[in-house]
Amino acid sequence: MSAPTLITILTDFGTADGYVGSVKGVMKTMAPQAELIDISHDIKPFHIQHGAYALANYYDRFPSGTVHLAVIDPGVGGSRKPILIKTERFYFVGPDNGLFQMVLERSRYYEAYEINISALGRQAISSTFHARDIFAPTAARLALGDARDLYGPAINRPVVLPTDAGIEVRDNEIKVPILTVDRFGNIISVLRKSAFDELQGKAIKSVRFKNFATKRVNRYYTEKKTGEPMALWNSHDYFEVAVSQGNAARYFDVDEENDSIIITMEK
Amino acid sequence: MSAPTLITILTDFGTADGYVGSVKGVMKTMAPQAELIDISHDIKPFHIQHGAYALANYYDRFPSGTVHLAVIDPGVGGSRKPILIKTERFYFVGPDNGLFQMVLERSRYYEAYEINISALGRQAISSTFHARDIFAPTAARLALGDARDLYGPAINRPVVLPTDAGIEVRDNEIKVPILTVDRFGNIISVLRKSAFDELQGKAIKSVRFKNFATKRVNRYYTEKKTGEPMALWNSHDYFEVAVSQGNAARYFDVDEENDSIIITMEK
Amino acid sequence: MSAPTLITILTDFGTADGYVGSVKGVMKTMAPQAELIDISHDIKPFHIQHGAYALANYYDRFPSGTVHLAVIDPGVGGSRKPILIKTERFYFVGPDNGLFQMVLERSRYYEAYEINISALGRQAISSTFHARDIFAPTAARLALGDARDLYGPAINRPVVLPTDAGIEVRDNEIKVPILTVDRFGNIISVLRKSAFDELQGKAIKSVRFKNFATKRVNRYYTEKKTGEPMALWNSHDYFEVAVSQGNAARYFDVDEENDSIIITMEK
Repeated sequence: MSAPTLITILTDFGTADGYVGSVKGVMKTMAPQAELIDISHDIKPFHIQHGAYALANYYDRFPSGTVHLAVIDPGVGGSRKPILIKTERFYFVGPDNGLFQMVLERSRYYEAYEINISALGRQAISSTFHARDIFAPTAARLALGDARDLYGPAINRPVVLPTDAGIEVRDNEIKVPILTVDRFGNIISVLRKSAFDELQGKAIKSVRFKNFATKRVNRYYTEKKTGEPMALWNSHDYFEVAVSQGNAARYFDVDEENDSIIITMEK
Repeated sequence: MSAPTLITILTDFGTADGYVGSVKGVMKTMAPQAELIDISHDIKPFHIQHGAYALANYYDRFPSGTVHLAVIDPGVGGSRKPILIKTERFYFVGPDNGLFQMVLERSRYYEAYEINISALGRQAISSTFHARDIFAPTAARLALGDARDLYGPAINRPVVLPTDAGIEVRDNEIKVPILTVDRFGNIISVLRKSAFDELQGKAIKSVRFKNFATKRVNRYYTEKKTGEPMALWNSHDYFEVAVSQGNAARYFDVDEENDSIIITMEK
Repeated sequence: MSAPTLITILTDFGTADGYVGSVKGVMKTMAPQAELIDISHDIKPFHIQHGAYALANYYDRFPSGTVHLAVIDPGVGGSRKPILIKTERFYFVGPDNGLFQMVLERSRYYEAYEINISALGRQAISSTFHARDIFAPTAARLALGDARDLYGPAINRPVVLPTDAGIEVRDNEIKVPILTVDRFGNIISVLRKSAFDELQGKAIKSVRFKNFATKRVNRYYTEKKTGEPMALWNSHDYFEVAVSQGNAARYFDVDEENDSIIITMEK
């Protein structure tokens, strides 16, 4: 007996209003043998970059053939397209709004298509609940196997994440809000390496975060002694403040909403 | 191979004290082949109407034969009965306190029974933890198939939801608290159409919510232009404030605990 | 067809950064037939005793053969050992830091081993993410069956929970912080009977909690009339304040972070 196909589920819906339940019901009705794996329903509401970051942390740990459903979708009902992506090992289903950018950057090969909604054969598509009416049925069809009829027009350039994301640039200084504090206490900012290079292209002169200042940007946690704070580009190419072998969030008593990292650039 | 029977689980328990874990353990011990689907454990504590609302959003999306376990149970250990409901397509298990009212209103056919606890054959029934000791074993037995011995006396009139639910009536004005804000930002009140008809029987003259006032009650989101606020009876017959194609919670900067909707009636 | 082996998962990771997702992915890749059961990811961060308490509430409700993965691990990367425990009915995998103490106290028989990491055959072991790199693969191997090669040196005395846990002792009075408020509203303190006996060895003269005072310590909820508050050693041997057939958290309007139970001892 082969193992059932997995469908992972990532949303910003919370669970308390039952909508995630309806998404699961649709999939179990269409693909009874598929196995549903909750990843999270606690992504910050409408925060595409937070979802993209979470997705990067788990998708490639799953077995080949896994269907990754991910819906953080502030543009639902607007002009953003429903997308289906096939990489060498996985399928991804969700809105084309940048959520899958890190996946695509890391995939040697991918095909991306607008989902052919008419092939879903559903009478009613809600304008606000594509998770249930478009994405869940698409994921279920992919889990069942042959789903070529769902591949609509190719999307050659999937939408990328916004580069600003609340970043303020002033003279030779940039002020970067916090994206999330992970469970290890690392303080991860919204600034990605690629966005930074595009934004400035200059070298970093110094970094400040609360009472900490440094002229060095590290690449590995181990470049500092245990207990020492540092600024670094993390393994996902996000700029973060960390404490070697420690918990930066506790070290700095971080306020995720209000604290910022200040980066000063060479002139 | 046929797919395993599904058991969905809705509670207000949270997960952090391990009690939901014990409920799952009981079911997997009794019905190893059943597949457990988490819906939510974040229903507002003891808030039956919140649970009823969530349940209405997912139950009928599941495949026929699904067992829906739902436990929001402020009256545990008191006189409320443990109920087992069989509709044309589903089973429901939980406390008889109104939690299943919307399900019953929408089912063309149903049978409801008090659960015959003695048939569960368990030595000890906790007086405070019926989820683990009564409802979980009942759901597991239903998932296994033949469970007629669990059908106790018929319950001909299942308990209905309280109609007041914090609603204040004064002269020709009613003040309605918020039930929940869903993930689309719709501001859903505790007022149901049927309770409203019973309460007043008069026509609505105007509706106020914070700085918004209207004389019109809508039926569909699309009756307003994008971005415009509205009052309406939603698809579950709850009175709500919404923004067409938008997020009312953000539009109004809603305070779920303290804001109310004011409805003025014709004299 | 026999039912798949279950792996339950308890962490303090939350779900929003995708790390729990990666733990699940590792297990489903290694042991596709294993069935993953979420218990909670909302244990208070780094709060070993909270995790131990939750674990005690569910582990023995699961079928024999279940693998219980539990990771509340403030000492990750330090000298604490990764442990694998085999009792008469279950496997436990996680850090050796007291998390499994209550399990061991209740097991007539157990074997405990340091996990033999080299047998996992993984190239890279992160120094901060043993859940994904050590505990998840070990749980998956146990779910697959033969895993004797993972049994490293025997651990004859697993680490026990700290006995202080924020308890303040002054003269003949001890001030005990709250561990957690469970979903029944019971106010559970950090004080265990065994720690208490070790700490004092004297008889309790009186107990105070907010405006409630008593000279009696109960053993069962039913020793008091409905609605009456009481102090008792609960079924897990934790000292708690409860209300018979009621909700003590609401009765006392408890502040979980700041309220304490004061126990006065006989001189």
